[in-house]
Amino acid sequence: MKHDLVIIGGGPGGYPAAIRAAQLGLNAACIEKENQLGGTCVRVGCIPSKALLESSEKLVETQHDLKAHGIKVNGVSVDLTQMMKRKDGIVKALTGGVDFLFKKNKVTRYKGTGRIVGPGRVVVESEGTEPQEIEAENILIATGSKTAQLKGVVPDGDRIGTSTDALSYPEVPKHLVVIGAGYIGLELGSVWKRLGAQVTVLEYLPRILPGMDSETADEAFKIFQKQGLKFQLGAKVLGARVEGARVEGARVEGAECIVEVEGAEPIRCDRVLLSVGRVPNTDGLGLETVGVQLDERGRITVDEKFQTSAPNIYAIGDVIVGPMLAHKASEEGVACVEHLVTGYGHVNYDTIPGIVYTQPEIATVGKSEEQLKDAGIEYRKGVFPFQANGRARALNQTEGRVKILADAATDRILGVHIIGPRAGDLIAEAVAAMEFGASSEDIARTVHAHPTLSEALHEAALAVDSRALHI
Amino acid sequence: MKHDLVIIGGGPGGYPAAIRAAQLGLNAACIEKENQLGGTCVRVGCIPSKALLESSEKLVETQHDLKAHGIKVNGVSVDLTQMMKRKDGIVKALTGGVDFLFKKNKVTRYKGTGRIVGPGRVVVESEGTEPQEIEAENILIATGSKTAQLKGVVPDGDRIGTSTDALSYPEVPKHLVVIGAGYIGLELGSVWKRLGAQVTVLEYLPRILPGMDSETADEAFKIFQKQGLKFQLGAKVLGARVEGARVEGARVEGAECIVEVEGAEPIRCDRVLLSVGRVPNTDGLGLETVGVQLDERGRITVDEKFQTSAPNIYAIGDVIVGPMLAHKASEEGVACVEHLVTGYGHVNYDTIPGIVYTQPEIATVGKSEEQLKDAGIEYRKGVFPFQANGRARALNQTEGRVKILADAATDRILGVHIIGPRAGDLIAEAVAAMEFGASSEDIARTVHAHPTLSEALHEAALAVDSRALHI
Repeated sequence: MKHDLVIIGGGPGGYPAAIRAAQLGLNAACIEKENQLGGTCVRVGCIPSKALLESSEKLVETQHDLKAHGIKVNGVSVDLTQMMKRKDGIVKALTGGVDFLFKKNKVTRYKGTGRIVGPGRVVVESEGTEPQEIEAENILIATGSKTAQLKGVVPDGDRIGTSTDALSYPEVPKHLVVIGAGYIGLELGSVWKRLGAQVTVLEYLPRILPGMDSETADEAFKIFQKQGLKFQLGAKVLGARVEGARVEGARVEGAECIVEVEGAEPIRCDRVLLSVGRVPNTDGLGLETVGVQLDERGRITVDEKFQTSAPNIYAIGDVIVGPMLAHKASEEGVACVEHLVTGYGHVNYDTIPGIVYTQPEIATVGKSEEQLKDAGIEYRKGVFPFQANGRARALNQTEGRVKILADAATDRILGVHIIGPRAGDLIAEAVAAMEFGASSEDIARTVHAHPTLSEALHEAALAVDSRALHI
Repeated sequence: MKHDLVIIGGGPGGYPAAIRAAQLGLNAACIEKENQLGGTCVRVGCIPSKALLESSEKLVETQHDLKAHGIKVNGVSVDLTQMMKRKDGIVKALTGGVDFLFKKNKVTRYKGTGRIVGPGRVVVESEGTEPQEIEAENILIATGSKTAQLKGVVPDGDRIGTSTDALSYPEVPKHLVVIGAGYIGLELGSVWKRLGAQVTVLEYLPRILPGMDSETADEAFKIFQKQGLKFQLGAKVLGARVEGARVEGARVEGAECIVEVEGAEPIRCDRVLLSVGRVPNTDGLGLETVGVQLDERGRITVDEKFQTSAPNIYAIGDVIVGPMLAHKASEEGVACVEHLVTGYGHVNYDTIPGIVYTQPEIATVGKSEEQLKDAGIEYRKGVFPFQANGRARALNQTEGRVKILADAATDRILGVHIIGPRAGDLIAEAVAAMEFGASSEDIARTVHAHPTLSEALHEAALAVDSRALHI
């Protein structure tokens, strides 16, 4: 079998690339080792976590916020099985959706692990079936990433696990220790805190959300502490182990984990979530057979057309440089394919938003204050608190604020940092404006509907020029 | 006392104008007849309705949606007094906020009714105090609008009332008849339906939401019917009256209203909400003393600087032409004042969004399909259903869709119509893009974070060119 394009990996990088390739007339194939298409994102990442975040948010709301609205309830309880069932149903519908899209667009799907065996040659291997060799005019590597490891903390498929495990704990942990205060740790830590667990987050750095605008991260830190998450910052985890009897493959009743932290008391807990980052999936791809080079951090090196060091072999998403985000991978996949077929294709890396789906949400795009300072760029700053936004008050969600950073000389927007209700929806306007090279005055002079949360962005833009109307 | 600028009306048109004027160095004053600043919008319009919409949405969610999330509750009940108290608290905080802003910006506030008595002369009249004449270099009329009347339906301050009354019913009506299927009727009808009332909406036209893109309004119609709202379209209301004993000023227990509809059975109900539109507030302003002209529909005529036919007298908001929307009034107020001081000031009437805060929300900007057809403009259409959006699924809110209309020749976006979750937040991106004269391809090539509702806008933009990835 010969294809114009063979994509290895059916995640948010690979599957849209396959669909776009088919739309552009290519005979496209996609190799995915899991039964379900959609990759980490749809199966065990963005989608199921958002489902649990939403359900657990509803629980907190039901327990604590309804009273203010004049809604009385008795006996709130959680049916974790049903909550998980809803999550699994959403995942099933969306992975099935990708199957449907492949059929509709006539993308050939191969079930198995893809391995390059030479120029234009890929072998698909799957347990219980004969390896199948397919020919590929072009190969696109979109194999994504996996959980980074930490010395001394070895996932055991039960008590010590990764985000995949934390999406399916069979019961609410009494005490969950999260290693790493990045977005995955904070989202899943929030889920289980809301469901009743004691949650302790350990972070090696002296701050949470590494890389994020630090003022915004500080505000988030205060809010998460108020919500009852416990933090140990500057905590170097030396190891984690399970104490007590163990049975291979089976869950151990009453088992206890011990997490060792340098210079501090060991922490006893019943589950450990390791979330210290992710690393590219490049093992076993046969890259050496065609001379695909990696950079010093194990990522595949590509040029601006996403071409690797080997001809006709491309790579996108988490296996190359850049933020490990589903939408970044999708955009790259589409751009790579468009470049291949039309000669044009482009991703604007200055306008890739990032969202943390905690409550409130945190959404940012562009440069942080630290980045601007480090680069010696003079900027003006406009801030507006949701406290002064009418819609936020109507929603009873007034925590957080919008911050816009604009070039002091040109007024061009360089960064937008939102922590507050529906920040992930609100950032879209900022991204679109920045895509047009907007100045803060452009946002200030754009009509924003009243009463909406987006007025906070409007006011922050006005505030850049010290002419906010509502503070 | 002499002021550079005297603004008559402290609503969403007048108060931001006063603040902006003060920022620009004017000695500004604002006359407001109500104790609370903020106008209809803050006191008895946008803000309190959104508070009740939110609370009543939470009720429906608690009654019907929690189970799917795995959250069990018993004995859900409504404390209407508390629900109203929360609403009143929000209104109080925000009107108080405007007071604070006036003090902070040194805007002089006059309590009373403003009446122009000659060029540069305004009298403030308030019951129990002597009329006070103030001098004004410039006068800005921002008196807003009031409920339009309907022959035979006379609000009686009790059973037959306006939106103001419907924000404070002392108990849930058994049967509420809403006259007029515009956004006010649908929002408040939704509130009381959710709280347990039977709600019948009567509309003279053969459709709901007059003026809105009709395909979008049709979809809304189906959804509202599914929610249990009853509609009678093409219904000409001949009158409404209260039957039974009445006591002046007091609520009448057991009183029943009868609404007469041409060619149909009279409808018996216990409350009537008259919401057939709004008319400009121009009575008693003394316009004749200075020769301010009105148009054929009773609106004050202005030029592009918002100047009336009388020198140094300006008008903005609901008393002039254009959509009667708070944010339209605010933008005009700011633009008028900026023009006065700086010589520049501008409102882009092509990019004024409108939102209906039902569930799901409906948000639109730009032209409807009917308007484009009437104008003979060829367009392409891209549609994406929330059903295929991952975040919408995680939220369990998959009704509705995004529709983008783009010029067939230039691809410039001419209209965006969203019905779906958080449509009011999502429209902000469309507005900002249209402000830049965006093409649908511009939105298609902008990175949208995953998983967010804004991806539906992205996909609709891709769909304009038949290259949506997820349908």
